[in-house]
Amino acid sequence: MNNPNSSPTLTNFLQSCKHRIFAQLKHYLPETNLYPSKLYEAMRYVVLNGGKRIRPLLVYATGQALGASLESLDRPAAAVELIHCYSLVHDDLPAIDDDNLRRNLPTCHKAYDEATAILVGDALQCQAFLCLEDLEMIHVLAQASGCYGMVAGQGLDLEASEKANLTDLKALEQMHALKTGALLQASIEMGCLGAHCHDPRIKMTLKKFGYHIGLAFQIQDDILDTEGHTDVLGKTAGLDTRHKKVTYTRLLGITKAKEQREQHYQNAMNILSHSGLPTHELESLCTYIINRNC
Amino acid sequence: MNNPNSSPTLTNFLQSCKHRIFAQLKHYLPETNLYPSKLYEAMRYVVLNGGKRIRPLLVYATGQALGASLESLDRPAAAVELIHCYSLVHDDLPAIDDDNLRRNLPTCHKAYDEATAILVGDALQCQAFLCLEDLEMIHVLAQASGCYGMVAGQGLDLEASEKANLTDLKALEQMHALKTGALLQASIEMGCLGAHCHDPRIKMTLKKFGYHIGLAFQIQDDILDTEGHTDVLGKTAGLDTRHKKVTYTRLLGITKAKEQREQHYQNAMNILSHSGLPTHELESLCTYIINRNC
Repeated sequence: MNNPNSSPTLTNFLQSCKHRIFAQLKHYLPETNLYPSKLYEAMRYVVLNGGKRIRPLLVYATGQALGASLESLDRPAAAVELIHCYSLVHDDLPAIDDDNLRRNLPTCHKAYDEATAILVGDALQCQAFLCLEDLEMIHVLAQASGCYGMVAGQGLDLEASEKANLTDLKALEQMHALKTGALLQASIEMGCLGAHCHDPRIKMTLKKFGYHIGLAFQIQDDILDTEGHTDVLGKTAGLDTRHKKVTYTRLLGITKAKEQREQHYQNAMNILSHSGLPTHELESLCTYIINRNC
Repeated sequence: MNNPNSSPTLTNFLQSCKHRIFAQLKHYLPETNLYPSKLYEAMRYVVLNGGKRIRPLLVYATGQALGASLESLDRPAAAVELIHCYSLVHDDLPAIDDDNLRRNLPTCHKAYDEATAILVGDALQCQAFLCLEDLEMIHVLAQASGCYGMVAGQGLDLEASEKANLTDLKALEQMHALKTGALLQASIEMGCLGAHCHDPRIKMTLKKFGYHIGLAFQIQDDILDTEGHTDVLGKTAGLDTRHKKVTYTRLLGITKAKEQREQHYQNAMNILSHSGLPTHELESLCTYIINRNC
């Protein structure tokens, strides 16, 4: 494993995909010379100011491993990132996480106002569905992001914080499988769909891969919240502790949390290496996910 | 015109559609015996406690005029109502309209809490797209409800309230064409799609009808905000005035606003009667829309 204090470098392919998704996202956002200009400006502020773009990269890397053209992956890549961005804006609101900093900039409701931030999230969710042109992809995205996926996870998180009843690892895993795992899984699934891959064996392999990389991703998130610094993270460090959230580091301690992260990372890498697919890009992305410092 | 103090009766067909849509909506909402139960309960609270169901009725009445089966209209009817319900929940939030009462019950953030209300809105929007199985309908709904439709209208409304720069009838009409008109138009368009009607002449006729009934609907909304009583309305009367919103009644005065409502209603009815279609149900719905007391 690389030094956890510096994010590892992505492959050239993934770096070029990061440029590509920026252009795609720009394309799917409204121009600010139109009215309501404040809403449109805020939508662009939220989406176009940085971000690691892990979900779109997962779409591209999966599709690439299965021989898809980049063009067939652009729309799902944009859609998952739009959903992710909307969820960040709403999560940051005072009534939920009440965070002031995101990607080293004031959060949407701080840079604009709460009413605008609510509308920005609503509009970005809608744009995600608008930019897709494949019914199966729409179904995968809606299943993963709504009340059976990401929003369910957020609901569980809220209830757990209120009742302080999330005390075991299994419940924590279930919550994160929905809150962050579902959208990561959907990114992989849409990569398959972009490649017109319907081979159940490959899909199952990638699903298992998604399970492990999703958990590794979330554990790294919790570790960064505990060990990271606000200026590197670009968001407020220690917020989970402040909100008394149950996290992997709180439940397991930092050492065991790192062991778990390593375990899930190794499982994910093993699955890839036994898949028989050209997964160089996916492996690079995996390593990036668990070594990132923000 | 009927006595504006009592809502006129809907035809048997429309009344049965109101029962039908209730069952449909129930079907597309998660059961409360599942977790996160608070989120699921709140989603059902918002959607299943009353409501005039004007948008679904517009889907059914349009489809019926074009010979569609009720089954082919169920999904779009549910989808437009889910979008409408999500928009009400988010509009009622303290940061936007700050309303405590909706359909004679505490608004979602009052009955539950703000965090839950934000998630409920997010989840309902997603459910709307999840329940559709037709790509063209999804596109129509996303165009009408996001940053080029309903949310754009809400954005214009916010900006207008801040800058107090909405002073002419044309700008007010543009705002409402997006804020409420777009989703009403989408309901009509999805009724056409449910009937597999692609005749451009019929579609244009119904579009013009939608324009007039949309404005008549909104003017009646403004009149009810001015003249209605909270206990009949089921939501706080006079809220637009309290928020210094520009409304038809404020811009034109109550008498002229009523004249305008009548004019748009007559235009809508004339378009129907010259359409050559069996529009009995649509006519009944029109009359209901401008005579409703809540």
